[in-house]
Amino acid sequence: MHPDKDKLKEMDEGGKGSIAYELAKKQQEISITEFFEKNKHILGFDSRTKSLLMGVKEAVDNSLDACEEADILPEIFVKVTCINEAEEDYSITIEDNGPGIVRKMIPNVFGRLLFGSRFHALRQSRGQQGIGISATVMFGNISTGKPAHVRSKIKGEDSVAWKMDIVIDTKINRPIVTNEEPFPWEGKDHGTRVDYCTKGLYRGGKQSIFEYLKNTAIVNPHAKITFEDPDGKRYVFERATETLPIKSKEIRPHPQGLEVGNLQKMVQNTQHKNLKAFLKNDFSRITDRIAEEILQASGIKDKRTAAVTREDCVALVKAIDVVKIMAPQTDCLSPIGDNLIKKGLMTVLEGLRPEYYAQPVTRSARSVNGNPFLVEAGIVYGGDIPSEGEVSILRIANRVPLLYQQGACVITKAIESMDWRRYGLEQRGGSGKPFGPAIILVHVASTKVPFTSEGKEAIANIDEIQNEIVQALRLCARNLKSHLNKSERKSKTHAKFEIVQDILPEMAKKSAKMLNRPVPDLSRTISKIMNVVWVDPKSSFDAKNKIKKVTYDVYNYTRSEKSFRLHTQLPKEAVNESLLCNYFKDMNDEGKVNWEILNLQPFSSASITFDLVGDVADVFSESDIYLSGVNPVLVMGADPLPGDWGIKGMDITESDADIIDDADEEEEEALDDEEGKEAAEDDE
Amino acid sequence: MHPDKDKLKEMDEGGKGSIAYELAKKQQEISITEFFEKNKHILGFDSRTKSLLMGVKEAVDNSLDACEEADILPEIFVKVTCINEAEEDYSITIEDNGPGIVRKMIPNVFGRLLFGSRFHALRQSRGQQGIGISATVMFGNISTGKPAHVRSKIKGEDSVAWKMDIVIDTKINRPIVTNEEPFPWEGKDHGTRVDYCTKGLYRGGKQSIFEYLKNTAIVNPHAKITFEDPDGKRYVFERATETLPIKSKEIRPHPQGLEVGNLQKMVQNTQHKNLKAFLKNDFSRITDRIAEEILQASGIKDKRTAAVTREDCVALVKAIDVVKIMAPQTDCLSPIGDNLIKKGLMTVLEGLRPEYYAQPVTRSARSVNGNPFLVEAGIVYGGDIPSEGEVSILRIANRVPLLYQQGACVITKAIESMDWRRYGLEQRGGSGKPFGPAIILVHVASTKVPFTSEGKEAIANIDEIQNEIVQALRLCARNLKSHLNKSERKSKTHAKFEIVQDILPEMAKKSAKMLNRPVPDLSRTISKIMNVVWVDPKSSFDAKNKIKKVTYDVYNYTRSEKSFRLHTQLPKEAVNESLLCNYFKDMNDEGKVNWEILNLQPFSSASITFDLVGDVADVFSESDIYLSGVNPVLVMGADPLPGDWGIKGMDITESDADIIDDADEEEEEALDDEEGKEAAEDDE
Repeated sequence: MHPDKDKLKEMDEGGKGSIAYELAKKQQEISITEFFEKNKHILGFDSRTKSLLMGVKEAVDNSLDACEEADILPEIFVKVTCINEAEEDYSITIEDNGPGIVRKMIPNVFGRLLFGSRFHALRQSRGQQGIGISATVMFGNISTGKPAHVRSKIKGEDSVAWKMDIVIDTKINRPIVTNEEPFPWEGKDHGTRVDYCTKGLYRGGKQSIFEYLKNTAIVNPHAKITFEDPDGKRYVFERATETLPIKSKEIRPHPQGLEVGNLQKMVQNTQHKNLKAFLKNDFSRITDRIAEEILQASGIKDKRTAAVTREDCVALVKAIDVVKIMAPQTDCLSPIGDNLIKKGLMTVLEGLRPEYYAQPVTRSARSVNGNPFLVEAGIVYGGDIPSEGEVSILRIANRVPLLYQQGACVITKAIESMDWRRYGLEQRGGSGKPFGPAIILVHVASTKVPFTSEGKEAIANIDEIQNEIVQALRLCARNLKSHLNKSERKSKTHAKFEIVQDILPEMAKKSAKMLNRPVPDLSRTISKIMNVVWVDPKSSFDAKNKIKKVTYDVYNYTRSEKSFRLHTQLPKEAVNESLLCNYFKDMNDEGKVNWEILNLQPFSSASITFDLVGDVADVFSESDIYLSGVNPVLVMGADPLPGDWGIKGMDITESDADIIDDADEEEEEALDDEEGKEAAEDDE
Repeated sequence: MHPDKDKLKEMDEGGKGSIAYELAKKQQEISITEFFEKNKHILGFDSRTKSLLMGVKEAVDNSLDACEEADILPEIFVKVTCINEAEEDYSITIEDNGPGIVRKMIPNVFGRLLFGSRFHALRQSRGQQGIGISATVMFGNISTGKPAHVRSKIKGEDSVAWKMDIVIDTKINRPIVTNEEPFPWEGKDHGTRVDYCTKGLYRGGKQSIFEYLKNTAIVNPHAKITFEDPDGKRYVFERATETLPIKSKEIRPHPQGLEVGNLQKMVQNTQHKNLKAFLKNDFSRITDRIAEEILQASGIKDKRTAAVTREDCVALVKAIDVVKIMAPQTDCLSPIGDNLIKKGLMTVLEGLRPEYYAQPVTRSARSVNGNPFLVEAGIVYGGDIPSEGEVSILRIANRVPLLYQQGACVITKAIESMDWRRYGLEQRGGSGKPFGPAIILVHVASTKVPFTSEGKEAIANIDEIQNEIVQALRLCARNLKSHLNKSERKSKTHAKFEIVQDILPEMAKKSAKMLNRPVPDLSRTISKIMNVVWVDPKSSFDAKNKIKKVTYDVYNYTRSEKSFRLHTQLPKEAVNESLLCNYFKDMNDEGKVNWEILNLQPFSSASITFDLVGDVADVFSESDIYLSGVNPVLVMGADPLPGDWGIKGMDITESDADIIDDADEEEEEALDDEEGKEAAEDDE
């Protein structure tokens, strides 16, 4: 019943001259380069100030990625020169000691959008899109008409360095190379350098190049970054560690969250002949047994991949949802780690002394759409931190600090969704940004960070990610709250102590004098009134020599002798032999340490003293101290040892051990669960 | 001195086996389709709920654009059907009465990213990128494996309708068409319909399809939209006007803000042989004289365009900055207009009666990077609007309501940058989101709205746009503030009146009785005490018959007779002959009306009454009333006629005319300027 061709043509052209034909004339292809040229704000090049930053950011991110991939400790040099301030002409240089780029690849890497090495790889890296550095070159070209100049030398004794000028042909998204030639790069074994001119505006402040580089140095303590600003002033962010972060490994895609269409495409492109082999080899976490289970659940017998239909794919996706499959490996991720997070927060403070560092939290990895991700968080509170305005938020994605678009970011969203009043911060109505003297740091690491745009300024609102951030922050916040409670209790105890210790003896003395009798021994009375084992942590830090002196004075203000253990977790790198003194018992691989104090008599005290030395000495919070062996209701200044602490405490054997009233805590848990649900449901 | 080729090759390959070669193997092109497939959140397809909305949005936006381009009053049908709730399978239909799409263009329009008719055109339209609808088709394909089904019939008696199935080949970004055939589309003269399946989740609430369609109907009152939800419930948003919005015209690029590289490219592609002819013909607002001035300022003599160098372009860009060139035409834009903005705010309120509509503001057009844009704003305040939480914000871009990413949007930014405490709203610390019973509407119209991402959910932070929004809002907010002041003053006056009118006569009566003398005439005394001309606006609205009755009672509580004029602006469409009664004098084209009251005796009153009828009757705020001819210090309940009002008031001729103390107002202006500067500087 198919109408003949001529007839068709005639029918088709019946409407000629109509508006639809007018519109058809305008319909045409849009080149990706033209698209981004017109939508430069999407790439983050929407103002002169930001353009300058974006260019530096893209180049530095690439340098760090390349160095890490080649196991090189990064050494990066950034220079911003103002050529003509009135005309906003700047020249930028970024040089690294990376592995270099093979000559024939240089033009594509710098002169073609959507070209890169990391887009198809499932592992944590800063660059992923193959857009950043070429966009930088493009906007340099467009705004000044000048080419970018690239030099590169690859590792290897006899390899020569190459240099060339690069311009992007935006009509076809291809590089145009001129002045290409080899040259001897004096004193350079390997590395890449790009020089380009651009319109820009150099500014200081919170969203400046300086700030970006400083924050980058903080979360990449293995990198040395040198920055020369337009005034010629040099800043060197020295390496804080000689150890490269654990290298993230490339993994195969995880079947979880796979779409039918994606599976169809994978089947079409696989090199494996049979469906089962395809499942086993093209995915991670699918073993022989799991592949079998998936086939069974889908009701499909193993068959040639060439014969797999759309219906088969629909059935397979459903089956994958049902069959239990292990979560993705996490060695594709590279978290910053607790100590470096604390260290980072300290550096941000620039000498301000906070009251408290909440123990940073690193959540275990999860997966969204087959992409593993993990969240780390830390909070620092009080002391010299300004208490007037909103809390400060430090957002980090794959070790890259995010400076713009805070309002659009899932990190901000997660923070705003929590009721911070429960954790001791001010907040209007229990949602929105909290106020108070605190800095909140959140790091999201993923094989594919879902940025809201190609400019990589904010992370999109993915429920699973928001949830993980909330969980991590809640742990930190509880830690903060318990510190605040402890401080409050401590100050109350202090007040009580003053009364008991100062006034009672005074009264006794007076009474004795009046009655003309000897002054009685009050220690038993005082103990009776106080009835606590009191742990009093003190510390001092010698910033010059990086030595932190820690002392725990422990007073037995109860009526009976006490034996107990104290526990804390030390940064292992900072521990020295001073720890081995007095009550020390043992320390495990994680730096968790036990002290044991036996038979401490009523109204007597014991003292534990040790030094921490080196870079991470000051990340230790002495108030994170735990005590076991004494009924927690009798302990002041230390927390009971948590059940999941993993090291052995001392059993409570005393007669006066009472059951602790933890109704409050249970209630809080219940509240938390509800809040969690809300957070997950609250989309936008 | 160029080294010979073999030598070069040898040198080049010296580093082979090094890490750079390993990395080079991974470097490859990324297809745009693959890119967006992996970054679907950038297009707004980041959750099941949002995906469903995005698809509908893209299709409806396209339908509205097409109808308007073809001068057709849009009639759009949207249907969302849930196929399988547990598996999140949905089927979507969007049908319009647009001009249709020429058969051979259908596959590209629906099955190829970055293909469209509006990307290269400089005029206001909803779609601009050529991504939306094809991305919708792509995610439908990917998530269900099923093709989209498209039908279209173009206008013209004998043209046949075509239907076809479309799938996108994501490796090469091209459509694959199957089952293409002509068919008779019963009862359809012209239009397009797309049916597709997708994974999704239908939800109600603030970010739902229903909400999007409702808001779309509000700002597009010429469209009729029918929606059938998954429960089969039908909602019809009827057309509120039969008039199409003024069609935006396509313009040539404006030279302002041009980059050197763009100019270079334009020169290379021009059809004009000489530089001057190129300048005159390829740009808007460059006349013969201006072209001459630009050439002179750049120091270039007219030459062949083929001979124009980069240096010439640099000089030309500088010259363009210096020469005075008219702002771009604004007929490429299509604002919503004051009345429809008020109307829109009313519809959003759904029957809640607010206390006050601040007069909406439409700013004149500006240009950023050669793209004209304009800002419209409106505020509605008080009454039944909930006063507890933050104010509600309605964001609109090119007549499309924005539901997601509020935090990332320049509109939110602009609102947060203002000190709303000065205009009567609560706000912590004078920045951030204000609290109180208000809804703020902002519309940004532009030939190129700079969205933060391809998903078009938020407008990027461009200083110029933020500034215009702040200016527009400030005018609205002042209007609001003056209303609030007026209300306060009015309630004070009321209190005074009560005392004067009730108690004084009572006292006089008592005294007269006690003294056994006649009750004195107090009218002169009362006038002396009050000493005001009092305008008391009242209104009632009959929603069923759409009739608003307005009355102004004017009392002369001064000691002398008064002659004066009253002025207001009425929605012209709602005016009928009832206006011609009593004191009416004249009305101009904008609906600005004058009444004249002559020789009103002390202690007597006059009354002006009229009806407004029809759709926009209720947008009129009777409290926006102005009075001229009497010294403003003597007037209560009306404002002095503003200088820029454009119609003639009555001169103040009385002897008691004093100079008004406007020191306060000057101070406010100064503050405003400062705030403006801050807003412009505050980048993020």
